[in-house]
Amino acid sequence: MSRCLYPSVVERWCVFEVAVPGRQDRNPFVDWFIKGVFKNKNEEVEVDGFYDGEGMYKVRFMPSFEGEYSFRVFGSFSDDTYSGSFTVTPASKNNHGPVRVANTYHFAYEDGTPYYPIGTTCYVWTHQKPELQEQTLATLKDSAFNKIRFCILPKHYVYNFNEPQTYPYEGAPCDSSGLTRENFMDPELLKGNNWDFTRLNPKHFQSIERRIQDLMDLGIEADLIVMHPYDRWGFSNMSSEADELYWTYVIARFAAFRNVWWSLANEYDLMKSKTLRDWERYAAIVCEKDPYNHLRSIHNCRSIYDFNRPWVTHCSIQRVDQYKTAELTADYRQRYRKPVILDEICYEGNIEHGWGNISGQELVRRFWEATCRGGYATHGETYIHPEEILWWSHGGELHGESPARLKFLYQILRDVPGHGLKPYRLNSDSVTAVPESTAHHGTYYLDYQGFNRASFRNYHFDDEHEYQVDVIDTWNMTITDAGIHQGKFTVKLPGREYMAVRIRKV
Amino acid sequence: MSRCLYPSVVERWCVFEVAVPGRQDRNPFVDWFIKGVFKNKNEEVEVDGFYDGEGMYKVRFMPSFEGEYSFRVFGSFSDDTYSGSFTVTPASKNNHGPVRVANTYHFAYEDGTPYYPIGTTCYVWTHQKPELQEQTLATLKDSAFNKIRFCILPKHYVYNFNEPQTYPYEGAPCDSSGLTRENFMDPELLKGNNWDFTRLNPKHFQSIERRIQDLMDLGIEADLIVMHPYDRWGFSNMSSEADELYWTYVIARFAAFRNVWWSLANEYDLMKSKTLRDWERYAAIVCEKDPYNHLRSIHNCRSIYDFNRPWVTHCSIQRVDQYKTAELTADYRQRYRKPVILDEICYEGNIEHGWGNISGQELVRRFWEATCRGGYATHGETYIHPEEILWWSHGGELHGESPARLKFLYQILRDVPGHGLKPYRLNSDSVTAVPESTAHHGTYYLDYQGFNRASFRNYHFDDEHEYQVDVIDTWNMTITDAGIHQGKFTVKLPGREYMAVRIRKV
Repeated sequence: MSRCLYPSVVERWCVFEVAVPGRQDRNPFVDWFIKGVFKNKNEEVEVDGFYDGEGMYKVRFMPSFEGEYSFRVFGSFSDDTYSGSFTVTPASKNNHGPVRVANTYHFAYEDGTPYYPIGTTCYVWTHQKPELQEQTLATLKDSAFNKIRFCILPKHYVYNFNEPQTYPYEGAPCDSSGLTRENFMDPELLKGNNWDFTRLNPKHFQSIERRIQDLMDLGIEADLIVMHPYDRWGFSNMSSEADELYWTYVIARFAAFRNVWWSLANEYDLMKSKTLRDWERYAAIVCEKDPYNHLRSIHNCRSIYDFNRPWVTHCSIQRVDQYKTAELTADYRQRYRKPVILDEICYEGNIEHGWGNISGQELVRRFWEATCRGGYATHGETYIHPEEILWWSHGGELHGESPARLKFLYQILRDVPGHGLKPYRLNSDSVTAVPESTAHHGTYYLDYQGFNRASFRNYHFDDEHEYQVDVIDTWNMTITDAGIHQGKFTVKLPGREYMAVRIRKV
Repeated sequence: MSRCLYPSVVERWCVFEVAVPGRQDRNPFVDWFIKGVFKNKNEEVEVDGFYDGEGMYKVRFMPSFEGEYSFRVFGSFSDDTYSGSFTVTPASKNNHGPVRVANTYHFAYEDGTPYYPIGTTCYVWTHQKPELQEQTLATLKDSAFNKIRFCILPKHYVYNFNEPQTYPYEGAPCDSSGLTRENFMDPELLKGNNWDFTRLNPKHFQSIERRIQDLMDLGIEADLIVMHPYDRWGFSNMSSEADELYWTYVIARFAAFRNVWWSLANEYDLMKSKTLRDWERYAAIVCEKDPYNHLRSIHNCRSIYDFNRPWVTHCSIQRVDQYKTAELTADYRQRYRKPVILDEICYEGNIEHGWGNISGQELVRRFWEATCRGGYATHGETYIHPEEILWWSHGGELHGESPARLKFLYQILRDVPGHGLKPYRLNSDSVTAVPESTAHHGTYYLDYQGFNRASFRNYHFDDEHEYQVDVIDTWNMTITDAGIHQGKFTVKLPGREYMAVRIRKV
């Protein structure tokens, strides 16, 4: 019997990994399988393992409970089976478990700690040079961002014709030397790919999972985009067998990371070779193969997916109207009865495309609109850069004005009593949020004024109670004590845009 | 036979008036009538006259043709009939006749000169003290505004509880001394009006028609709001007999002024005592009694009127969405196939209400959106003022940043080849306008970038022709020559909001 490598102790909700040697004949990715069964007094979980190259097979497991576990590893990969045991220690201070839906429209970590997503987008940051990846992590560490959307597969799109560090399959890519902004969609130029879709490249996935772990260490959720249409290599047009192999491999490798979310696709509706039946099939694979029930959604271009489908845990929406974006949040809540994340509402920047050149003010306004309507929004940044390093695609440094304001918003959100906000009809001139939980009704109002510039606002909740009023400048990031009021009262405002009034029962 | 007063010469499209004495017994407003018939080789027009008080009756007529006219005045007002003749001289330089619909979606004066409305709103400027009215006229003279919306009846609403200079009826108003922002809708406080709705007050209407004439002299259209809901006197709740008397009196007095437009009501849907049948009845009265077919529309609060009704000449729309206002212009064009004027899309200002506190930038953006989608917009201003003189209601001085930019927009509009703009789908990232007239297609593009902040934009119309490109900063009011281009070309932009690219075939 060969050597079986595994740790004797692992922290709750961390990755427990068993590594064993196995067959290298034929094609280990498709001809042999490996599975693991993990067991303690509270759970017994069977998971797929995967071939990690160089004769090594791995099985990963995320324990949901503390205490003693035993495991058994078996399959056609070897004539041997392996077993052992390990101890799961309590979660450390910053480990709250995977994120779950909570209170219908919101999120919490598995230990009950509320999670308020302030997402960002760096589609292919893990496919850039290592120094740039390190810079991205350093930038994230200094930010409020606690979710990042990025792609497993490399990306071919404007501002992003460079080759990735690795490819997901064995083989060779087409020649990209003649690609320009004008011809990059020309199918003639994208010929010459030569991939073996039955042989994955473990190095590609290893580098991504290192980054998933880095994000976990920073307390950031990895909103993994499993498929996408920005493709010159044919990865968006594989056969259903190849797709299935890809999906099972991705799940086997990544599911044990507690911070993983499954975004089935970005702009799924631009992947013309895939049908709704395909998406439902991928969803079924995830539901079957991911034993931890990570969050699942799918992101649109023009046609929002039917988020009423039972496998969808939350809405992941791209704006479908040029002018109303976050303003539709309450409608989505009502339609889908699930958490609403507006994962693309245009990016702060100055590129030529309308989706990538709004001001910091406008992006922050959209965040506040989403927040005060009981949803969440996601950031992105697309400033023209001398080396074409755009945060939205490559990561790197942030240049915009919105991230500091999103950190400020995050603090406001964390101070909301109970868990999360919901929209409330206080008047027709502003967007008012109240706590989602009925236990806190009547105790807290966040009255966002958006682009309106009132010099004062009148309020009247009741005649008995006193209310502490704060005037919040969401752009200049100030909170000004406006005193304690009772009955009918007037709150003076500076007649500027982007103000909010916070009213809390004393 | 008593003396009949009338001029022997009148300019085409000006007011010809015959004044004659008549019966003062009983009630001259309802018991006696006066009519006139005006005739030349091209037309024969019968119009209602009206009682102007102090024993004098008047008949007014706007001649549409040059040359010799004869007239006859008759009715129960007197045992006598009167007749005479007069000469109509050619229109003077700045007199182009009444405004008509032209080219389906646009407007022209009757002599064919294009008319591009840049409207403003001073609801009750004619009911303020004479000095303030004079100041309003002086302000208008310096502006680009060529249409003004205002009310015939006095207004009772926030920032406007003062008594008007005159009342439209004989009688006495309720006591307004205790009115405040909080109680002004309390029906108990609005009791004690004592009007004779069968006896109009000619002085009230005389002062308005002097102002209509003043506006005409400035080349400004008087978009008369005949009814409205902002009322403490009961003028919005009269009987149908009283309404009919009011309408016929208004038409008999004002129709001969070439610059009159009939706005049946402001926020008609807030006048709860009136039904759709009432509005159709008023429209029928206007169609029957106004021989000049002045422009006719009706303005909504929440429910847009059915502008497909044949009597409606153009859409007069208030925004029905808090976020999409001028952006809906093309939809309205398609739905109604008539000119679209967005007569309320929020005002520049800083009062407490959302409809009255947007920035100058946002109001100007909405004007450009409306313009580039083939419609027109209307200005209003609501800045808090130490003496509560708000342009939107009282007139006076302008304090905002938008009027200068609207003057700039007006110059751009006047330079469009042909007559007016229509929306054109050039790309999905900006709002592009082209000339309405097919004769000018392909010669002119106005590509408005709105709140997007592109650093450059790419264009490609054809490979043969040369195009002159101008970069327009709609806020800073500059037009920068960006050279002559051919084939595929890139236009550099400053990465700021509110830019437009104008491209003209050489």
